[in-house]
Amino acid sequence: MSYRYKINVEYIGTNLAGWQRQPRVMSVQQILEDAIYQFSREKIIVFGSGRTDAGVHALNQIAHFDLARYYEPYKIIKSINHFLRSYAVVVKHCEQVSDDFHARFSAKQRYYMYRVINRNSPLALDFNRAWWISQPLNIKMMKRSAECLMGTHDFSSFRAALCQAKSALKTLSKLDIVVNEDEIKFYLSAPSFLHHMVRNIVGSLVLVGRSIWEPSEIKNVLELKDRKFAGPTAPACGLYFMKVDY
Amino acid sequence: MSYRYKINVEYIGTNLAGWQRQPRVMSVQQILEDAIYQFSREKIIVFGSGRTDAGVHALNQIAHFDLARYYEPYKIIKSINHFLRSYAVVVKHCEQVSDDFHARFSAKQRYYMYRVINRNSPLALDFNRAWWISQPLNIKMMKRSAECLMGTHDFSSFRAALCQAKSALKTLSKLDIVVNEDEIKFYLSAPSFLHHMVRNIVGSLVLVGRSIWEPSEIKNVLELKDRKFAGPTAPACGLYFMKVDY
Repeated sequence: MSYRYKINVEYIGTNLAGWQRQPRVMSVQQILEDAIYQFSREKIIVFGSGRTDAGVHALNQIAHFDLARYYEPYKIIKSINHFLRSYAVVVKHCEQVSDDFHARFSAKQRYYMYRVINRNSPLALDFNRAWWISQPLNIKMMKRSAECLMGTHDFSSFRAALCQAKSALKTLSKLDIVVNEDEIKFYLSAPSFLHHMVRNIVGSLVLVGRSIWEPSEIKNVLELKDRKFAGPTAPACGLYFMKVDY
Repeated sequence: MSYRYKINVEYIGTNLAGWQRQPRVMSVQQILEDAIYQFSREKIIVFGSGRTDAGVHALNQIAHFDLARYYEPYKIIKSINHFLRSYAVVVKHCEQVSDDFHARFSAKQRYYMYRVINRNSPLALDFNRAWWISQPLNIKMMKRSAECLMGTHDFSSFRAALCQAKSALKTLSKLDIVVNEDEIKFYLSAPSFLHHMVRNIVGSLVLVGRSIWEPSEIKNVLELKDRKFAGPTAPACGLYFMKVDY
């Protein structure tokens, strides 16, 4: 008999080695597992809805874990946050869920945002929180070229070399580009993503925005199904894991 | 003969001792003066439109300085930013202005924003960038009680004990409270402010929001013209110097 809890986690990834536990570096998973151990004395595994890379931020990362002893959810929030105080990681919500809930496998839709600041001068306020691009970007061309990525495709061109997914077939449900003064936000959602997929798509769209690529090049690259034809991986600091639908 | 330059500066105040040069700590003024010396070898004074306290941020702080030698404004931006790289301070704009322009004395209207995040859990993303308030806030009551502050009043109740202004008579041109999900933004503008005036007003309005004060208490406190009756000074980390009109 055990109790399963679902938590909603916010973090700034700048000084973290990403979601997944690894030796000798600080990951979000380890910080949470250590904090849960501190108050419960239970050595458990925290399962995330998906990994985020080093430097990537999260507004509503979802994770679950099991405890042998029952705690009121509000006490779990308080206790974890108490032991998280030295990190830019916070638990915003906690609820008890049934044993068939799985943060990763029950996820139906994942949402990411990628932030670009497009201006001449370097960033102070958004340093490490957005990709600074000083060259002018043609938004209309980026929007036009992004359309072909919508729907179900083999996204091999936009996956990381080390991506472990069995299939590169993914369904992009949303790819919106929203401009507000010098800030450009890319909103992407899909049931699941390949490793680096959002950052590789943004990196390629920026080549179109900078007029280095013709807008039609995105479609060409998609059809070539080979990572070596896509643009550079956009920096981690601009990426925000937004939320998950279950 | 000298050349006067107006610059627009963005900074995160978290690790800075505020605008004004002081011994043994790092101020924005000193960082700029040192950077200008690095490329021009001229020991000059940078005059800001107004001081900001330690921990206060700025999106468009305005300052001016004189150089004996002429530089193209874009070269000044590049050169200063080159030497600012280790600080969360950036020059966004520079232009040559006439000798009668003064960043402080020519200012007609100053704009501040104060950010509150109102939620149960502590802040990760906005840690040091907003005031975290976990108690529920009654926005309607805060808005109603704020109305009496608009216009010209003796703001003695909302000035810092150490404030050096000769008169406490100030004209508040704007005090808007804008809510977006768990974020509450206070927008204030006036030709000039007393020391701590924005933070003391926000600190007092929050007492109304928390129902510790009746909405009418703001008017009472204003009329008492004595700092000891106002609420606590809101923390520096939520305050943003937005811009100046000339």
